[in-house]
Amino acid sequence: MFIALDAMGGDYAPQSNIEGAIQFVKEFNIGVYLVGKKDILEKELEKYNLPDNLPLKIVNAEESIEMDEAPSIAIRKKRKSSMYIAGKLVREGKARAFVSAGNTGAAMAISKFVVGAAEGIERPGIAIAFPTKKGKPTVLIDAGANVDCKPTHLVYFALMGHTYAKEMLRISDNPKIGILSIGEEEGKGNDLVKETYPLLKKTKLNFIGNAEGRDIFTGDFDVIVCDGFVGNVVLKTSESLGTIILDMIKEEVKKSFISKIGATLMLPALKRFKKKADFAEYGGAPLLGTKGTCIITHGRADGKAIKNALKVASEFEKRHFNNKLKENIKNLIPEELQTIKE
Amino acid sequence: MFIALDAMGGDYAPQSNIEGAIQFVKEFNIGVYLVGKKDILEKELEKYNLPDNLPLKIVNAEESIEMDEAPSIAIRKKRKSSMYIAGKLVREGKARAFVSAGNTGAAMAISKFVVGAAEGIERPGIAIAFPTKKGKPTVLIDAGANVDCKPTHLVYFALMGHTYAKEMLRISDNPKIGILSIGEEEGKGNDLVKETYPLLKKTKLNFIGNAEGRDIFTGDFDVIVCDGFVGNVVLKTSESLGTIILDMIKEEVKKSFISKIGATLMLPALKRFKKKADFAEYGGAPLLGTKGTCIITHGRADGKAIKNALKVASEFEKRHFNNKLKENIKNLIPEELQTIKE
Repeated sequence: MFIALDAMGGDYAPQSNIEGAIQFVKEFNIGVYLVGKKDILEKELEKYNLPDNLPLKIVNAEESIEMDEAPSIAIRKKRKSSMYIAGKLVREGKARAFVSAGNTGAAMAISKFVVGAAEGIERPGIAIAFPTKKGKPTVLIDAGANVDCKPTHLVYFALMGHTYAKEMLRISDNPKIGILSIGEEEGKGNDLVKETYPLLKKTKLNFIGNAEGRDIFTGDFDVIVCDGFVGNVVLKTSESLGTIILDMIKEEVKKSFISKIGATLMLPALKRFKKKADFAEYGGAPLLGTKGTCIITHGRADGKAIKNALKVASEFEKRHFNNKLKENIKNLIPEELQTIKE
Repeated sequence: MFIALDAMGGDYAPQSNIEGAIQFVKEFNIGVYLVGKKDILEKELEKYNLPDNLPLKIVNAEESIEMDEAPSIAIRKKRKSSMYIAGKLVREGKARAFVSAGNTGAAMAISKFVVGAAEGIERPGIAIAFPTKKGKPTVLIDAGANVDCKPTHLVYFALMGHTYAKEMLRISDNPKIGILSIGEEEGKGNDLVKETYPLLKKTKLNFIGNAEGRDIFTGDFDVIVCDGFVGNVVLKTSESLGTIILDMIKEEVKKSFISKIGATLMLPALKRFKKKADFAEYGGAPLLGTKGTCIITHGRADGKAIKNALKVASEFEKRHFNNKLKENIKNLIPEELQTIKE
């Protein structure tokens, strides 16, 4: 098995990407294509004293996608970019998974349009595992891949979320699914929610009704579906609020000497908490519903995060995620919404 | 001036409502109508040794709105409820403001349909002042009054947010307005955002572009507009995450004795922080754009919170908020979106 890594994407590329890839390859003996400018990558690899038989291969790509470039540039204009070529390796079956820490919008576009959607899936969706009070995560899908959605898209997000929560995160054998809304009762919400609700009830998923914003962190739901606009706002609000609350606590603490001593004593606990709340620790977010596995990680990914992302990608393949997805479409989706014809 | 208080709404009604009203009336000498079941309220008032000349009057209302009743019941069926009659007092000009700690959905419906929309306003919107890193708050509007919005509604939310931030919160003379989206650049977002953006540019508001979820707490924007579905999800996510982060820190702290000592020393700082982050401390949320002032507070409002809500209501009236809103519509909204004809 080979994974195609966009070696030029991310704030610390290519150094961190190469560092992470080497660690991953050594530990798991799964192949990685390092896609990027050949001379730069070769020079970087020379720094390591690597054995010859390591399944680590450079695939040359002349261009790179910048962090502020439009996704349309990535898929239409810069077809010699490391990201584009990495995606193409998956499309052509030369690699099984695509991993990028580069420009998120571009990486999503490459995943959707170069790697392409999986059988039966119209709209791939980003799944984020949020830490919860109960210890086990809650999956929010879609966290930003699709801004204006139809009810059927949300039904398929629920199905992908179910498959991810069950097969990959092993949260539950029959994950509890909710739809993000305002108000708990059926009939509350916007038009999209009201139209999706009866469709979700018709599936064989364990749909338990409306979830509210507060339910993302309680652990009462295993999967919460929403359109990618709302999901992305929730994701960015939560990431930022977590950081800001810690900053505000620090500010308050500074005001008194006694508090400062207290904070010093609390430091190990605060660090453990920070690690728990750091969404990036989860090893990047998968874009579910593409032909191969696509993992998109934070731009600030270090070597460890890159290694984690590669590991997550390999697990998706080892557990045959897309086969399970296809089976679930056939088994859990009602006939009128069925996309798989035999 | 009289304010109509729904004396029966809220988890601690009527005790807290009466306690808060008495404190408010004594301190500010502004009148309050206590709307609710006469015998219950009279009995409660007897507990206090009140002077005769206090401008505190009971208005009898035979029914109450329960916390789980549908807003449609509140406006169509239970027309003898404390909430309905309090709203009617404002509509008829007998009171200038409406305050309720009862069922939020019902209180919004009463505000919109019984009190009614202000001149030039099609859709009143809930404004929430979020604490930010910079100390001054950022106003998010609409936080839940309207689930499916048109671009013009968002333009008017921006105008109401501007007027609130400038005249009531005194954040800035020319508040910086953003529209909540995913991605900073113009052209990023869903259809609603893309259609609203050019309209906001045509106003004379200080519109500075797209805001992301993370910008709610940075203080870089003074007002952020969004539809009420997204706004309500953001509000509930943030409230819940704040609480859960503190819980998670407590859990981590419990794991070691040293951390526990640290936490004890930090307690005053943590309490100060909690107060700062408690959105309820801001005295309830105004529903902007109604004929009188409408303030909706948390169901768990205690006496102090009720007093604060009454104080906020009186300040809206003292500063002639609705007159300023009308002036701003005339001066800041372009002709093609103008709702005020002279």
